[in-house]
Amino acid sequence: MRDVVVAGVGMTDFGVFRDRRLEDLIYEAGKGALCDAGIWEEREAVQALYVGNFSAEGFNRQNHVAPIAVRALGLMGVAACRTEGACASSGIAMREATLLVGAGVYDLVLVVGVEKMNTIETPGITRVLAEAAHAEEEAAAGATFPSLFAMIARRHMHVYGTTREMLSAVAVKNHRHGAKNPRAHLRKEITLEKAMNAQPICDPLNLYDCSLISDGAAAVVVASRERARSLAGIPVRILAAAQASDVPCLHDKPDITISRATRLAASRAFGEARLRPADVDLAEVHDCFTIAEIVATEDIGFFEKGKGGPAALDGATAFGGSIPVNVSGGLKSKGHPVGATGLAQVFEMVTQLRGQAGERQVAGAAVGLAHNLGGSGATCTVHLFGREL
Amino acid sequence: MRDVVVAGVGMTDFGVFRDRRLEDLIYEAGKGALCDAGIWEEREAVQALYVGNFSAEGFNRQNHVAPIAVRALGLMGVAACRTEGACASSGIAMREATLLVGAGVYDLVLVVGVEKMNTIETPGITRVLAEAAHAEEEAAAGATFPSLFAMIARRHMHVYGTTREMLSAVAVKNHRHGAKNPRAHLRKEITLEKAMNAQPICDPLNLYDCSLISDGAAAVVVASRERARSLAGIPVRILAAAQASDVPCLHDKPDITISRATRLAASRAFGEARLRPADVDLAEVHDCFTIAEIVATEDIGFFEKGKGGPAALDGATAFGGSIPVNVSGGLKSKGHPVGATGLAQVFEMVTQLRGQAGERQVAGAAVGLAHNLGGSGATCTVHLFGREL
Repeated sequence: MRDVVVAGVGMTDFGVFRDRRLEDLIYEAGKGALCDAGIWEEREAVQALYVGNFSAEGFNRQNHVAPIAVRALGLMGVAACRTEGACASSGIAMREATLLVGAGVYDLVLVVGVEKMNTIETPGITRVLAEAAHAEEEAAAGATFPSLFAMIARRHMHVYGTTREMLSAVAVKNHRHGAKNPRAHLRKEITLEKAMNAQPICDPLNLYDCSLISDGAAAVVVASRERARSLAGIPVRILAAAQASDVPCLHDKPDITISRATRLAASRAFGEARLRPADVDLAEVHDCFTIAEIVATEDIGFFEKGKGGPAALDGATAFGGSIPVNVSGGLKSKGHPVGATGLAQVFEMVTQLRGQAGERQVAGAAVGLAHNLGGSGATCTVHLFGREL
Repeated sequence: MRDVVVAGVGMTDFGVFRDRRLEDLIYEAGKGALCDAGIWEEREAVQALYVGNFSAEGFNRQNHVAPIAVRALGLMGVAACRTEGACASSGIAMREATLLVGAGVYDLVLVVGVEKMNTIETPGITRVLAEAAHAEEEAAAGATFPSLFAMIARRHMHVYGTTREMLSAVAVKNHRHGAKNPRAHLRKEITLEKAMNAQPICDPLNLYDCSLISDGAAAVVVASRERARSLAGIPVRILAAAQASDVPCLHDKPDITISRATRLAASRAFGEARLRPADVDLAEVHDCFTIAEIVATEDIGFFEKGKGGPAALDGATAFGGSIPVNVSGGLKSKGHPVGATGLAQVFEMVTQLRGQAGERQVAGAAVGLAHNLGGSGATCTVHLFGREL
């Protein structure tokens, strides 16, 4: 595998944009990434397009999204496809592009992630999201994502002594981080007291334990290191692109407090990059719920199993802590337009490793990790990024 | 790129299977392919899984299908993702696997295509299928796939003199072919008179111009030629794996009688394989409607533009003709479980090139082509296969 870099990134604001079409979001993010790489005017150089999207079908009655992106960005003729792996849809797209550039099949690929969710009411959105679980064995039985992660949280509390306060500490931290991110959906700090006493959603999870229902898109130009030399953007190395799967249902797992796909993908990523968790300077992890961030920080290997909650409470994962997690605000505050989330994590990594993150810049950031999770943990991608020296 | 082969194929019958779950179909086809390759018992050797599926979401309220396949086939941990490109969903999956094996990223990949459509009534199915067109600019305006292809047919008739009889000749031929395929959905011959006078669907298309609403799955083991030496199945060479895109909407095209994505994908495929259309012994082309087969046989290059209709009428594309097309029965008679169609074409190619097609065997078949089209032509894959000598 030859060296692969991110040569450009683009991203819309995340939020509620009822008057913007799916393709408007794609256009803004995709053009942003191509402009960042300095090849908007020569975009016939793009050799393939991957579009991460979870459910334009459910939210927009639009399947077959890749050609929509082809037209919006003026890339007619290019091989274009959508990848779908629930909330990891654009993590997968990112990995496909990285593998194919790394292997020499392509030199320059555009990856776009998009979701426009605020088209129907919340119960409908919850139903569409539940299609990422097992239709017959989970969704038909009444399971929703809040309820699945509530079970994980309850079990984590029981086994490891994780507390309500620890969950809320994740929410408070990510809101504090997101308040400094101009692209974040909900830029407001919250107090621990407010987070702990918010309206219950699915016990033990309350309103502030849940990520946001957002519209948005993000895009990344993936190129060989050599190809990137003639591009404008400051390149950031992709040190690893790993992926793993697990069974779709919680009830098939021996221990629901462990994300096996996260463990496997992280271990593969660290193996590829010849790095250890201690080498990582900052991470974007998939905090669809506060408990998910705690589980991820354990299973990636930042903390021992069961110590993710105390670490959040102690500030280890906060800006300025030993391993800052979700400095962008995460899914919790930056927002979670499902198919865009994986690439929005990459956007943050690249911004940080370029030293362009402004007041949320992690000083000396040289190695970053992005962790994107689909369903209740059935799909996981882990990418590692390194500052170009 | 190193040499890549199909090392195993599997396929369910195509038909209406109300009592079989999505994963039952995946299991039968996937296990079939792995058994054919002789590695069912050692399937931990599978390094990645690609699942082509158009809309389990619309038909089965099931998104995130890849982990369903992971569990059904016992492939936990493997990198697994769904690719979606409307009716070309599994053609895309096939190409991803071929590129990654060819480039040396993987040695052995399983590809599965699946669709279980007969879960809702026909108007609902038509609505789900229309999500492969543009939601706002086509579907919301009342366009359905029969209506989009009816416009193509009407224009083709106007420009080239294609007749009602020529369209029906395609239907009669594919039903005659499919009657000999034990896996086909509708195994019955029809007369030209019956085909010409069937119930109108969307003028000029009638019932026999339209493909079937089917349930089914197909699967393919893609391996490096070297890896396949230790496998049981008779390998078939993948000579080319090409893909192209076009705009999503008919109204954006300068000439709707031309499938630009087909032309581009075919020309790329022939370039990769250093072959010409005249070198092809048989082809499976995407006959979602009879007119689509006529357009495809022209744009692939088997016939001059406008001569596809007369060729069908003259028997050039029939079993025993100069270029037999859709000897399997095609989407028209074998059936069209959307996400399975691309791989069912590969199944037919491999069966033919191995000389195992029984009474529908094309004598001396050495080079075959599979053409898989998504939407009204926005996505196209073309694969070329060669008999191992």
